[in-house]
Amino acid sequence: MVTIATLGSHSALNILAGAKDEGFKTLLLCERSRTFYERFSVADEIMYLNSLSEIKDPQLQETLIQKEVVLIPHGSFISYLDIDSLETEFTVPILGNKYLFRHESDRNLEREWFLRANVRIPRTFSPDEIDTRVIVKYHGAKGGKGYFTADTPQEFYHKQKENEEKAEIQIQEWIHGVTMYFHYFYSPLNRELELTSIDRRYETTADAVVSLPNREPTYVVVGNFPLAIRESLLEQVFDIGDKMVEASQTLHERGLIGPFCLETIITDKPEIVVFEISARIVAGTNIFVPYSPYSYAKYFEPMSAGRRIAREIREAVARGRLKDITT
Amino acid sequence: MVTIATLGSHSALNILAGAKDEGFKTLLLCERSRTFYERFSVADEIMYLNSLSEIKDPQLQETLIQKEVVLIPHGSFISYLDIDSLETEFTVPILGNKYLFRHESDRNLEREWFLRANVRIPRTFSPDEIDTRVIVKYHGAKGGKGYFTADTPQEFYHKQKENEEKAEIQIQEWIHGVTMYFHYFYSPLNRELELTSIDRRYETTADAVVSLPNREPTYVVVGNFPLAIRESLLEQVFDIGDKMVEASQTLHERGLIGPFCLETIITDKPEIVVFEISARIVAGTNIFVPYSPYSYAKYFEPMSAGRRIAREIREAVARGRLKDITT
Amino acid sequence: MVTIATLGSHSALNILAGAKDEGFKTLLLCERSRTFYERFSVADEIMYLNSLSEIKDPQLQETLIQKEVVLIPHGSFISYLDIDSLETEFTVPILGNKYLFRHESDRNLEREWFLRANVRIPRTFSPDEIDTRVIVKYHGAKGGKGYFTADTPQEFYHKQKENEEKAEIQIQEWIHGVTMYFHYFYSPLNRELELTSIDRRYETTADAVVSLPNREPTYVVVGNFPLAIRESLLEQVFDIGDKMVEASQTLHERGLIGPFCLETIITDKPEIVVFEISARIVAGTNIFVPYSPYSYAKYFEPMSAGRRIAREIREAVARGRLKDITT
Repeated sequence: MVTIATLGSHSALNILAGAKDEGFKTLLLCERSRTFYERFSVADEIMYLNSLSEIKDPQLQETLIQKEVVLIPHGSFISYLDIDSLETEFTVPILGNKYLFRHESDRNLEREWFLRANVRIPRTFSPDEIDTRVIVKYHGAKGGKGYFTADTPQEFYHKQKENEEKAEIQIQEWIHGVTMYFHYFYSPLNRELELTSIDRRYETTADAVVSLPNREPTYVVVGNFPLAIRESLLEQVFDIGDKMVEASQTLHERGLIGPFCLETIITDKPEIVVFEISARIVAGTNIFVPYSPYSYAKYFEPMSAGRRIAREIREAVARGRLKDITT
Repeated sequence: MVTIATLGSHSALNILAGAKDEGFKTLLLCERSRTFYERFSVADEIMYLNSLSEIKDPQLQETLIQKEVVLIPHGSFISYLDIDSLETEFTVPILGNKYLFRHESDRNLEREWFLRANVRIPRTFSPDEIDTRVIVKYHGAKGGKGYFTADTPQEFYHKQKENEEKAEIQIQEWIHGVTMYFHYFYSPLNRELELTSIDRRYETTADAVVSLPNREPTYVVVGNFPLAIRESLLEQVFDIGDKMVEASQTLHERGLIGPFCLETIITDKPEIVVFEISARIVAGTNIFVPYSPYSYAKYFEPMSAGRRIAREIREAVARGRLKDITT
Repeated sequence: MVTIATLGSHSALNILAGAKDEGFKTLLLCERSRTFYERFSVADEIMYLNSLSEIKDPQLQETLIQKEVVLIPHGSFISYLDIDSLETEFTVPILGNKYLFRHESDRNLEREWFLRANVRIPRTFSPDEIDTRVIVKYHGAKGGKGYFTADTPQEFYHKQKENEEKAEIQIQEWIHGVTMYFHYFYSPLNRELELTSIDRRYETTADAVVSLPNREPTYVVVGNFPLAIRESLLEQVFDIGDKMVEASQTLHERGLIGPFCLETIITDKPEIVVFEISARIVAGTNIFVPYSPYSYAKYFEPMSAGRRIAREIREAVARGRLKDITT
């Protein structure tokens, strides 16, 4: 009997609540300080770790395999496990295709994915090419920390010097428009792409009602708002999603599996410009527990992103195809 | 046995999901490119059209009448059918009062409606009268495309010359405050006005977190956020709604039927200033599938705008009064 | 048999809908003009009053006691009953600890509470000490009316002179970040702190998409948006909540009982800075009728703030402990 497990952060409430909805046993792997998960009813068992990176420990992995765990990866999971060891040494079955995480974490590989899918993306620049407003981003999922904008090479060099972040950067064209985050689910069992929900991030300090003079806005994501899209744009939304799934199969033979997210900006054409992909569940789905308008129009019952994952696992188990949705 | 049908755009997922909730057969009329509706479970049947304007075809109308279709109109429906032919040549029963669509599409007739209802509205100006900030709008439901602001006659003429839109305009006082969109339902069967939900539109580029220097914001609606109102303001909300229903009966003997929406701005008095009416379902209800706080406090079950429509049709059929809610 | 009652404003739909969900009889005390409550199905009985302050009338109180009423207090309730008479002369059982309302209404007592809890709060200033951006607030729950900002003593004195509000003020450091409102429920029966939901207020004119030149933004709350928080911040959220509960027991022996709210700003560290507490239900919970992601992860059923209150009353009645949750 499969147990659904995840790490205590990011979208764990969503994932485990969905697992309970589908009747699974649940396990949470969690730092000792995060006892707050005990205040909810989502985890049948909590294993406290000194650090989430203990998940790499072979002994612990063995224990999880004994428990027939399927582990649901999320943004924090990817931060704590380095991708090399995840690909080569991690043996617990993971829902999704872990060989694509590299392509969401490295902005150059991510860009390659977008180009293969032929979706509209922001132009990129070397510092000296900057001739329009750009936004400067770091590699990896850091929740927007340290991002800054510039209009000229001079401004770029000046701000980069002040910045503490020393990771690799990518300089993107600033797309003028509003952000939207599309949460998809690709089912290998049904060979079907679904839209589970849409959110808008809440960023501090960019979303402060009053901006302070002489203070650059920051883009640290601290929450999410639920959103519905103008229905005529759904054609583009599914078109882009389909293209990303198709292109993913040229990056790794098994392609995208399960939940993924496209981070976009909608211009006033209106056109959807994609600037990031996450090849796993994204926290913007959390506000849609237990209902989303889009999943309701398919399932006519509560269907969160977490539950959709658990539903796929339940069906895979029933059909003896769990190996088709895990890596 | 009645079939509930609508066109594939705007709020079709909402409308058809609600129809399924109430046990109706459903039909979607849809452009060929919009196959994405097949990914949801709302349409029992999809008829693909080369263009939505084929809905005017007498043969197609005959087919729909044979199927005992009740057609649910929405913003895209009104754009595709010109109002003259809708009033005189269209024979498929439409939920709502189609003779009021003229009054939402023509800003002068709309203004007449507001004046009869005696609700607070923005002042209007001729170009040379502009002595405060104004917003310039085009007639018809174009999702905010081409709107611009001006503070002086000079600025108005300058911006108008640059603008590509050549439709008729209305120049409105810029009301300083926040937007709110109230979704009502007037039941002729119960002679009762309900509030189904409230939203705030998501407009690009006006809602972009950072505005670009020397670039006028644009007001293209691309999504909707759910919202609850300060409860003490509900008195005004129902008062305004009642007045608009009453005034509608002086415009056409049957008055408003079913869903309608008042587009408003709330000032810091706080006072509700109405700037538009839609005499049919509005897409801002889409985020409230399947639940809304306001419909829950009446029905204690999932009650989207789409379902509320279907419920009214179900009751009308049961009482043999379908003719009282269709035109 | 207990009847759940409240005053017709603020969060009455939420409170009474929750009471109905739990099977209680409900009573609404309401001004004559607010007949709109009759359009919903939440009140079994409505008693119309000429003014909500009639609630102080001993005869009326006697009637309520006869009906075995438990009264649910909210922001409007506190405005209409002066706190002295509420503490000494009001005899109808109130859900919650009415002896703490003084500590939310007086900014100095509130500050004492924060200091005892040792949570991060904005610095306060006397007018002449202003050396950074500050926000000037009035005592009591006035929905943000009259608040203003200043950067210098001169600006403060200038704006204060123009302002009509003459109540006592508090000058707070302007915290740069985004607002979040955390809705908690402390159960004395289970000795447990829960998070029921999170919202962001909609303020006019501060949230207007375009600000007007030479016009100070105003902060009148007219609505609420639903929100989910970045999950890693929940540790801080519960930590702060626990500290406020603990500190409340040093202010009054019975401490916090039932629903309360912390009004906060999230900086880009990210750190949660608390600037207000409400020792009772707050209207930001209204958008979460009937569902919230956080209450779902505990109860796996619709659980609004109103219903959570009613559930506690139901359990208290069943265990003969109603006196433990009322004052």
